[in-house]
Amino acid sequence: MPEKSAKRLPGRPRQADTDTTIHQTIISAAAALFKEYGYESVSLQQIGNQCGVSKQTIYYHFASKPELFKVSMTTMLHNIRTVTARLLDEADHLEQGLLRLAEARLANPHAEIVTMMREAEKFLEEGQIRSIREAEQDIHDLLADYFRLGMNQQQLREEDPLFLAETFSTLMLMGNRDNASGKYESPLFLGQKLVALFLQGAKAT
Amino acid sequence: MPEKSAKRLPGRPRQADTDTTIHQTIISAAAALFKEYGYESVSLQQIGNQCGVSKQTIYYHFASKPELFKVSMTTMLHNIRTVTARLLDEADHLEQGLLRLAEARLANPHAEIVTMMREAEKFLEEGQIRSIREAEQDIHDLLADYFRLGMNQQQLREEDPLFLAETFSTLMLMGNRDNASGKYESPLFLGQKLVALFLQGAKAT
Repeated sequence: MPEKSAKRLPGRPRQADTDTTIHQTIISAAAALFKEYGYESVSLQQIGNQCGVSKQTIYYHFASKPELFKVSMTTMLHNIRTVTARLLDEADHLEQGLLRLAEARLANPHAEIVTMMREAEKFLEEGQIRSIREAEQDIHDLLADYFRLGMNQQQLREEDPLFLAETFSTLMLMGNRDNASGKYESPLFLGQKLVALFLQGAKAT
Repeated sequence: MPEKSAKRLPGRPRQADTDTTIHQTIISAAAALFKEYGYESVSLQQIGNQCGVSKQTIYYHFASKPELFKVSMTTMLHNIRTVTARLLDEADHLEQGLLRLAEARLANPHAEIVTMMREAEKFLEEGQIRSIREAEQDIHDLLADYFRLGMNQQQLREEDPLFLAETFSTLMLMGNRDNASGKYESPLFLGQKLVALFLQGAKAT
């Protein structure tokens, strides 16, 4: 009964499912390790150990370490974009959206990505760098659209919305300051101060 | 005539002077190389080659690579503090001081120091990290004093002056964005936009 033996056992995932799961697991492990230790000092062996697969399995899924880095960074940035969109969509007004966004970003600083990129860049191909930059730019574009809306509704003064988006994102690097966590009571408190300054600085007069 | 032969030749510096010069030259070369390539990938040999002295000479002046890193970073930060103080002192009013400071910082981004520190930290002793942090804090304190003055003169609203100092410094990281140099016409133009937003956000109402 060859047909029966070929049938999947109950609960056993299809090969494609397993592949997808392994693929995602490798990406998550890679992103976490790169974020913690930087690009150069993390080996594919360590990433494999972290998620219980061999180096060969990683090479089956990703052509190279720079390629895995690119995919893990763009995946992380796409997730940040998705969360950002949801936080802004669910807010009742501009200030609330920015407060929620600030709280989320300050608690989980994006600055590690900046540091990682600077360190990793010399090992990446131009196309890989561009992919990561584009994923970063997508987040700025989303925020710029939100600010453009605020201008149309006369809540913000006329200004380059992309400048405002990049300025807001840069302010969120305050969450990264080693001293900040102790100096400001909480990400929420720091977020309130930053959003207040930013909104007063950008509001329609 | 032993006395005569021991006399310095005209134009030949005293040993102490030479030592000071070599000391400064090593610090400058180290700071430049660390800034360009990061902590780990720069060797004392390279620093020696850069300024034409042997590794032994470096060890005569500095106990270790982490120690040389500490001294080159704190020296750089002290220089930044001196320039900052001069720019603010020479300005006719708050806005002008901030504009000059912004232009200087955006053209010569401080963010490399942040990246370097993150990379170097695992190689440094606690006391060395603290020295660098304190030199950084001195710059924030200077700026905070300037903002305190602005509050006393009712130009700025009452706010934690150190928060304003750190926020302003964080905004200066915009100069580091790889895309910024092309996107904004010049450091002056970007500085004007940032100072305008910051001052409107922080001004007395």
